[in-house]
Amino acid sequence: MRAAMAAAEVGDDVLDRDPTMRELELRVAGLLGATDALWTPSGSMGNLIALMHHLGRGDAFLAPAGAHVLDSELGTAAWLAGGMPRPLAHDAGPGKVTPSAVRRAAAGGDAPYHALRTTLLCLENTHNAAGGTVTEPDEHAGVVAAARGAKLKVHLDGARLWHAAVALGVPPAALTVGVDTVQVCLSKGLGAPIGSVVAGSSEFVADARRLRKMLGGGVRQGGVVAAAGLVALDRIDRLHEDHERARTLAAGLRERGWQASVPQTNIVLVAVADLAGTLQRFEAAGVRAVPMSGQVRLMTHADLTDADIATALHRIGPIDDTAGRVDGRRSPVRPGRR
Amino acid sequence: MRAAMAAAEVGDDVLDRDPTMRELELRVAGLLGATDALWTPSGSMGNLIALMHHLGRGDAFLAPAGAHVLDSELGTAAWLAGGMPRPLAHDAGPGKVTPSAVRRAAAGGDAPYHALRTTLLCLENTHNAAGGTVTEPDEHAGVVAAARGAKLKVHLDGARLWHAAVALGVPPAALTVGVDTVQVCLSKGLGAPIGSVVAGSSEFVADARRLRKMLGGGVRQGGVVAAAGLVALDRIDRLHEDHERARTLAAGLRERGWQASVPQTNIVLVAVADLAGTLQRFEAAGVRAVPMSGQVRLMTHADLTDADIATALHRIGPIDDTAGRVDGRRSPVRPGRR
Amino acid sequence: MRAAMAAAEVGDDVLDRDPTMRELELRVAGLLGATDALWTPSGSMGNLIALMHHLGRGDAFLAPAGAHVLDSELGTAAWLAGGMPRPLAHDAGPGKVTPSAVRRAAAGGDAPYHALRTTLLCLENTHNAAGGTVTEPDEHAGVVAAARGAKLKVHLDGARLWHAAVALGVPPAALTVGVDTVQVCLSKGLGAPIGSVVAGSSEFVADARRLRKMLGGGVRQGGVVAAAGLVALDRIDRLHEDHERARTLAAGLRERGWQASVPQTNIVLVAVADLAGTLQRFEAAGVRAVPMSGQVRLMTHADLTDADIATALHRIGPIDDTAGRVDGRRSPVRPGRR
Amino acid sequence: MRAAMAAAEVGDDVLDRDPTMRELELRVAGLLGATDALWTPSGSMGNLIALMHHLGRGDAFLAPAGAHVLDSELGTAAWLAGGMPRPLAHDAGPGKVTPSAVRRAAAGGDAPYHALRTTLLCLENTHNAAGGTVTEPDEHAGVVAAARGAKLKVHLDGARLWHAAVALGVPPAALTVGVDTVQVCLSKGLGAPIGSVVAGSSEFVADARRLRKMLGGGVRQGGVVAAAGLVALDRIDRLHEDHERARTLAAGLRERGWQASVPQTNIVLVAVADLAGTLQRFEAAGVRAVPMSGQVRLMTHADLTDADIATALHRIGPIDDTAGRVDGRRSPVRPGRR
Repeated sequence: MRAAMAAAEVGDDVLDRDPTMRELELRVAGLLGATDALWTPSGSMGNLIALMHHLGRGDAFLAPAGAHVLDSELGTAAWLAGGMPRPLAHDAGPGKVTPSAVRRAAAGGDAPYHALRTTLLCLENTHNAAGGTVTEPDEHAGVVAAARGAKLKVHLDGARLWHAAVALGVPPAALTVGVDTVQVCLSKGLGAPIGSVVAGSSEFVADARRLRKMLGGGVRQGGVVAAAGLVALDRIDRLHEDHERARTLAAGLRERGWQASVPQTNIVLVAVADLAGTLQRFEAAGVRAVPMSGQVRLMTHADLTDADIATALHRIGPIDDTAGRVDGRRSPVRPGRR
Repeated sequence: MRAAMAAAEVGDDVLDRDPTMRELELRVAGLLGATDALWTPSGSMGNLIALMHHLGRGDAFLAPAGAHVLDSELGTAAWLAGGMPRPLAHDAGPGKVTPSAVRRAAAGGDAPYHALRTTLLCLENTHNAAGGTVTEPDEHAGVVAAARGAKLKVHLDGARLWHAAVALGVPPAALTVGVDTVQVCLSKGLGAPIGSVVAGSSEFVADARRLRKMLGGGVRQGGVVAAAGLVALDRIDRLHEDHERARTLAAGLRERGWQASVPQTNIVLVAVADLAGTLQRFEAAGVRAVPMSGQVRLMTHADLTDADIATALHRIGPIDDTAGRVDGRRSPVRPGRR
Repeated sequence: MRAAMAAAEVGDDVLDRDPTMRELELRVAGLLGATDALWTPSGSMGNLIALMHHLGRGDAFLAPAGAHVLDSELGTAAWLAGGMPRPLAHDAGPGKVTPSAVRRAAAGGDAPYHALRTTLLCLENTHNAAGGTVTEPDEHAGVVAAARGAKLKVHLDGARLWHAAVALGVPPAALTVGVDTVQVCLSKGLGAPIGSVVAGSSEFVADARRLRKMLGGGVRQGGVVAAAGLVALDRIDRLHEDHERARTLAAGLRERGWQASVPQTNIVLVAVADLAGTLQRFEAAGVRAVPMSGQVRLMTHADLTDADIATALHRIGPIDDTAGRVDGRRSPVRPGRR
Repeated sequence: MRAAMAAAEVGDDVLDRDPTMRELELRVAGLLGATDALWTPSGSMGNLIALMHHLGRGDAFLAPAGAHVLDSELGTAAWLAGGMPRPLAHDAGPGKVTPSAVRRAAAGGDAPYHALRTTLLCLENTHNAAGGTVTEPDEHAGVVAAARGAKLKVHLDGARLWHAAVALGVPPAALTVGVDTVQVCLSKGLGAPIGSVVAGSSEFVADARRLRKMLGGGVRQGGVVAAAGLVALDRIDRLHEDHERARTLAAGLRERGWQASVPQTNIVLVAVADLAGTLQRFEAAGVRAVPMSGQVRLMTHADLTDADIATALHRIGPIDDTAGRVDGRRSPVRPGRR
């Protein structure tokens, strides 16, 4: 990847002249079944651009509780994109909502002119805070149809869409059917150092380009990072290894008494009584974790081997009563709570 | 009231020279136990000013589900005041939240610098969408203490605070203990044609005055409406008649087979299967109602007599199977759903 | 006027049921040659609603230097309506701009997608900060044609449009030709205690109604102030008396050595070396004045008689060297400077 | 540079763990005499973050006409940072303002509470739209002192500060004396593919980090581009070659009859009658130019040799009457006009 970056052909992307960037954007658009696409420095910016494009002042939007746009983007959905968030319960399983919940939430307000207008549904697949959970194509299609029926636009936060596609053995485009816009990350699981891509219609991308410039996300010779993104796209298929290792890690933790989730992709959530203490213990053991939905989130990625997983399990060791045991009534997955 | 308006002494309130307005503001501040207060053309503006004062860009704020600031102010809490709303379930009864829910929701985010900051709790007493439900002084104090413990500011939407005070037989100031700001309406139940008042510290009122000017709420010879507000304040005690008539109305409806709430103040909610049809039927019967929380909202006020209630019940008549009967599993009070 | 207020028929204007308000709005729309109109609590809100309606995120708008929307509305044109102001020099005389300046300023930016878009021209007639100066119908038409040619929308801040019409002896609609929206005040010169009206197409008014609700400008029984507005509209013709008295006042001041403007309407600007001191001196003499464009602004209105003017001149007396004499090179009218 | 990028040590910069990024930020802070600094994907984002940090809702800010924050950042200074721009005339020479103009513009508004608050001065050195013009240390100090005296904060857009420092033969820190924040670009003249740095106090950088995250400018393994930035910083001294070549280019153009500016740094502005036609002609000749301030902007950079300049002059050739000759009354430098 570094070699590709070093050899990249570049231009001034603020003026739309960087050929490597263009190649990346069109290739991602193709993978997602979209007409066009635009690179952004981060997934947060890709999501924000989509929300700014779709939402009018004070429009309400729906999203599954715990969605990244709700909890992890510093409120920009509200104050910058102008949207009034309406979290939906995960009534179709962790990270997933039902078509009927979408219909109910989108139903017209009470009053002729002063009711909130609900205009957008934001989905997330896989759903990070729920533990990297996967929405299947038919579930996706049902929810999107409900949104369409209620005249909502649909944006898909697909920062981890590659993981969902690999877990399901379907092409990414099978998981974007019917959406207006979708954002995917080249960093994180795919391993590019910087960058996400937001895709949609040509009209959307033209507006997104202007919005990206407003937010300060226009870059000059973006080709150097686009080259890394192109290499990253060649690595989608190997994500199944990360998923397998996550399952191994979770099983090992459960054997050692930890209340670990059964991972659908590369995320393991561990419910613990003492969150801060456990994070410190893991850090001391050389296992970097972050808090997520009130639990410990562990993640597998390309730089980890089977041996690393074994080492991690060895170092973490069995749970002990003081630090880690969690109350049995407590659900291991609590999306949308902090 | 009209006579008082006609005789009001006035000045230019944009330049802070209207004596009648000043008298009104100070009298309301006194009633609420606040240092100072400011008149606004509407309760929505009073709430908005308080939120703009308290919230920084992207700050999260808590409010009971169905609160007016969440559902009935066109998303200004988000796009204009910059806040990210976090609705709380009514786990202490309709319209009310528990201290522990406040503590849990306010708990610090996951990450060192990119987590949402929760900085404000918005209460509403009585809670309109829950059916005019009353929070008692000790319940209020417990929730406010939890908010204080979590370093949250507290704003109270007291558009119907007079009703709560009368229903409980306590002075209004007993229901504002510990809050930073409170908004009360002079129109609606009290019968003034225009106007609300938002109260707090002197520092708050100075900022509120500037924010009111920004929003276009500064008026010239406001004394003419302030005079009406002063008359309205003399009418607080008679609200108990409205509450009594609401109970009579609700009881009569239940006798006729309607699934009506047991009102705590002057609001009756009626759960029906066919909302739009029932509203039309009531309108045709000369009973003006609005939809609220998916139900029919009826309200009693100063211009209604006992005879009017009897007439209304007579005209509405018994429920019939086609239009009104609601599924028994459905709760009559569903705050926060639309 | 007070009697009319006391007798007004009212309804709930938030729900669009106040008949007196509706009568006022339609009468103003007729006077301005517009399809429909909406009452607002202040002229600032009327202007703000128009700007929010016309401007997209970051759009540039043109306005004569010193315009009320630029200098006297707390920056809401920028932060709330999202506009980037571009002040125009008064190259067609005080308060007035030339068609060529509009064309030049509206000319497309440098770059294909990242240039500012200029989409709106805001005019002001009379121009307050320039001293109540009048734009004539043909001047107005020329500037509007230039804006139209550059595909700009046009909003007219007509807070003092009545004064311009009376000074020119033309109907108000002669000064609104070609504009998309216009705001007029019922308070100030016309003497209603509260209220302005913003007029335009039916589509505009529908959006304006929603924006007014957002800003907290929706009121309940607005009829009481609308009744005052209807009386105010009967008083337009008498404004010529205020203009005459302003001329008398200015002439008297000049006779006493003050550097007073030659008023076109009811505003007199007095250039002084010591602004703060002179304002205090006038206040002590019982003559209330405000600072405007770095000068003393005096204004005549319905409550003043010829005798009041004579008294004011007597009390102010001749200029003396220490307090008031201004450098001869300094223009008496300096719009757009603070 | 590409080799450095390929070899860079990286971490996750969203979590503040990228060592190469940190090295870059601290080195730039040192060069600018600041306590700390933060990388941003673009100069626009760096400026925007500084404005968001300094400005409150509706605050006015001063900047020389034609400044990048006024004309080239899509109005974000207004709608996103909440500022009301007040352009200052270049009364101290192209791109430069006088201390007295700052004092005058910052002088308090007219009214006690509803006047605009002016709180910030934005400088630009070199001033791009004025033709890369340089402000000298004593001029800078005088203007900053005036701003300080008026209690304004000061932000310096130093996208081309390196050029000013090299042209003057002073260290960059000599041109940042007294400012609160400064933004510098690593791309453009210095040749890094992506990135700018915004510097200031520790408190500012902590807030800037949060604002960068909001805008979507947080990146993961930023070290790959930071490595390029470090190489770029080693190239500051060679900018004098670009300046020399710009002078050669301008002189050659003037010899050929073109109305070219006398460049102070690496920018040449050419005043022409037919801007679009001339740009096409230059493009056809293989000389890439952009429109700027109504003129043709040519720029020299590291990839150009003396031979390239000679070739460009040869290809452009002498001006001819139809396309290029400009009216003699027209100033060759017209900053702030589009």
